[in-house]
Amino acid sequence: MKSLLAGWESLCEASSVLRFIDVAFRGVGQVMFQDNPLSGALFIAAIAWGSFAAGVPQVLFGGLLGIVTATLTAQWLRVDPASLRAGLYGFNGVLVGLALATFIAPSPLLWAYVVLGAAVSVVAMGATANVCKSWGMPALTFPFVLVTWLLLLGTYGFAGLAGTALPSADVVAPFTSVAATRLDASLFVQATLLSISQVFLKGSVVAALLFLAGLAVNSVAAAVAAVCGAIVAVITAHALGAESDLVTGGLLGFSPVLTAVALATVFHQPSLRVAAYAALGTVFTVVAQAAFNVALTPLAVPALTGPFVLVTWMFLLPRLALDKATGDPPGK
Amino acid sequence: MKSLLAGWESLCEASSVLRFIDVAFRGVGQVMFQDNPLSGALFIAAIAWGSFAAGVPQVLFGGLLGIVTATLTAQWLRVDPASLRAGLYGFNGVLVGLALATFIAPSPLLWAYVVLGAAVSVVAMGATANVCKSWGMPALTFPFVLVTWLLLLGTYGFAGLAGTALPSADVVAPFTSVAATRLDASLFVQATLLSISQVFLKGSVVAALLFLAGLAVNSVAAAVAAVCGAIVAVITAHALGAESDLVTGGLLGFSPVLTAVALATVFHQPSLRVAAYAALGTVFTVVAQAAFNVALTPLAVPALTGPFVLVTWMFLLPRLALDKATGDPPGK
Amino acid sequence: MKSLLAGWESLCEASSVLRFIDVAFRGVGQVMFQDNPLSGALFIAAIAWGSFAAGVPQVLFGGLLGIVTATLTAQWLRVDPASLRAGLYGFNGVLVGLALATFIAPSPLLWAYVVLGAAVSVVAMGATANVCKSWGMPALTFPFVLVTWLLLLGTYGFAGLAGTALPSADVVAPFTSVAATRLDASLFVQATLLSISQVFLKGSVVAALLFLAGLAVNSVAAAVAAVCGAIVAVITAHALGAESDLVTGGLLGFSPVLTAVALATVFHQPSLRVAAYAALGTVFTVVAQAAFNVALTPLAVPALTGPFVLVTWMFLLPRLALDKATGDPPGK
Repeated sequence: MKSLLAGWESLCEASSVLRFIDVAFRGVGQVMFQDNPLSGALFIAAIAWGSFAAGVPQVLFGGLLGIVTATLTAQWLRVDPASLRAGLYGFNGVLVGLALATFIAPSPLLWAYVVLGAAVSVVAMGATANVCKSWGMPALTFPFVLVTWLLLLGTYGFAGLAGTALPSADVVAPFTSVAATRLDASLFVQATLLSISQVFLKGSVVAALLFLAGLAVNSVAAAVAAVCGAIVAVITAHALGAESDLVTGGLLGFSPVLTAVALATVFHQPSLRVAAYAALGTVFTVVAQAAFNVALTPLAVPALTGPFVLVTWMFLLPRLALDKATGDPPGK
Repeated sequence: MKSLLAGWESLCEASSVLRFIDVAFRGVGQVMFQDNPLSGALFIAAIAWGSFAAGVPQVLFGGLLGIVTATLTAQWLRVDPASLRAGLYGFNGVLVGLALATFIAPSPLLWAYVVLGAAVSVVAMGATANVCKSWGMPALTFPFVLVTWLLLLGTYGFAGLAGTALPSADVVAPFTSVAATRLDASLFVQATLLSISQVFLKGSVVAALLFLAGLAVNSVAAAVAAVCGAIVAVITAHALGAESDLVTGGLLGFSPVLTAVALATVFHQPSLRVAAYAALGTVFTVVAQAAFNVALTPLAVPALTGPFVLVTWMFLLPRLALDKATGDPPGK
Repeated sequence: MKSLLAGWESLCEASSVLRFIDVAFRGVGQVMFQDNPLSGALFIAAIAWGSFAAGVPQVLFGGLLGIVTATLTAQWLRVDPASLRAGLYGFNGVLVGLALATFIAPSPLLWAYVVLGAAVSVVAMGATANVCKSWGMPALTFPFVLVTWLLLLGTYGFAGLAGTALPSADVVAPFTSVAATRLDASLFVQATLLSISQVFLKGSVVAALLFLAGLAVNSVAAAVAAVCGAIVAVITAHALGAESDLVTGGLLGFSPVLTAVALATVFHQPSLRVAAYAALGTVFTVVAQAAFNVALTPLAVPALTGPFVLVTWMFLLPRLALDKATGDPPGK
């Protein structure tokens, strides 16, 4: 694997076109924190599979248009070269493209909207990164969430953009399960895997396996954390009595999966303490996902990865010395 | 009083169980800014009275479960020892427990929810404190408000948790008083006292007197500020034509009471200028409370102490030199 | 022009009454970033014309009461003298007064509400400025937006204040144009000019020309940016299929106009790169304006200049080196 990546890197050094592809692939990989073009390539394969299998090839196109636009915009705005090279200015763009093409009917205006959104996602990333660095925080997918919420809300004011797959507005009402549902083994596995694929807005078992492969080629720990996070999320959501379709469709699990990967493997060294802390964050992200779904009900837009961003920031911000040996209280 | 507290302190030094109780009591006291175990004990007595008088003993249990969970979690996460000792990691936990047990029907899942919420309130406190210290700001009850809003919103997505005492969702509509209501002396006194007891979600005159006693044993100025804040809030709400039941139930006054105590006695030295500034903040908190009530109408969750947090931050952030002598403009 | 202003300045030095008027006028000018009493005077003339022409003279009175209250409050609170002198503590007050008098029926309680809101706008300005300076950001009209939203939301809880001109609450629903509307030359000019006058909540062509004159006496570039921003906003809104009445009434253009002026002339040196960047921000502000309108639909309050604040902060925060020569990447 290492020699493969080294060979690719030397090719990129020689060709600005390959470098552009490298940066774009890393951007896709960064959706799940992987600064690795191979992770990005596997993620794109997963998106392609999920899009074609669901009969919505335009979603793949939206994602690719988003990553290309975001990368070009970042070059035009001359952002920090190291961050650009690591794909940090691309992951929000690919998500904007995937989300808009998922929720809005295809039309020329949609593609203009994707270009606008992906370009602005670069600006939003620069803004978020600048604020976050005051506390040593990562921007996470906040730029994607903010820009996409505005773009999706805007469609309700524009006749040119039809939000065909958006939820319909409703008043908030308590949820009562129609009948006690059992979560058998096969549904449990499905719920776990779709919780992973829904990180990229895909409901596909094959895509989920490709996403896990993309994680594993760069970080086995991240792949393990994703699976564990999904399992914790599914159990939590089921125990609290969440709607079965949401659980088995992975729709309450994708934000917790990201929280688990972030807290357990990206921003802390893995340990038992860290695992317990990450589990607490993952459980709470399930509650936050349900809360966001409810809070956004009157507005008829989806929660996206907003719950992941909120809870992960909340759990990173105390800057707890979780890795330190016992008995050594943090100086703080 | 001083020798009593000194004796208690020496007992705590010798016993880790008593120290735990001391920290828990201080945590309850910190809900109204009092770092004093006796204040906490009187506040717990008030909560107990209010809970039993209203036939909801589970609310007392929720509060105690919250404070114990939060204190244990803070120890596990090895937060800053001085802040922990002062009860600063406990007051959000007790409020989470009181609020959840007030608004959600009792069940094993409720107690699990309280434990989750109180544990996360510690993380949220660490996060808020870290951000706030950039501007020398206190965290106030923001962690409680944020975590409880998410937990209460989440109940609408979970069949396992029934939000029996939550407001019902509605569209926003102008309020028109059915008839001109008079606020006679007895109702005025009731409105004032319940504005104080509602800080702990209790509508009880006896509880209010116990809360005032708890304030007075640590700070007579704080008790005076609480009464004055409540009076200003009741007059303001009545003059603006607020719903009588809200005014007399103290439901528009509890956030202003906290604003008054915070601005007049905790973060400034009392003076005429400071009193005028605190009064302005108290009056505006009444407006903010009404505004939050309206804004949360479609979401069917209560405002909690959100208006207090927003307005008190707003009034502390300019860091005005209110205490300085006249004619000496701040260097800023 | 320069000698006129120099003469006025020497008069102000000699008279505290004239100085007060000078500061108040500069405060009005700062609504569109112009620290110039003549700009303020022309803006007041525009407000007066627009108010009397629309048969609502109380709106002019509200604005004047707001600016006087805010300036007096800022003096009482002894804010930073240089900022006070430049009108930076006045522009939110005048906007609070204009907005409240526009949306709420006249009554003695309304004027008390304006005094409260304008006084609190000074506190909110101090708070916002203190937070914003951590990243070198301007406060923009955030204090006005925050305080006015709270005051307008509050009216739904107070029988004493009737929100006669507020939008009515509704559930979010996709917008479908009744018929394809053409934007002919005369409507296009109207839409452009009203986009400028709506910055001060006025729908008047004459007022728009007075506002442009007020900009031009201090900065021709600002006047050009305002017109260009309005044109970009009208074209964008029309192309996306926005409701014709909103476009021709300038109601989707006033926030973009402010974004254009801010990004193109206030916080960057004009250049082709800056113009392109400002255009991107202006286009996105149209989307944000539509999004805010939708998001606030259930709450029945207007978006005010919230979209301008959000997008302009987003575009300023990355602190991009747009002015630098090509080939010189920012050190960041």
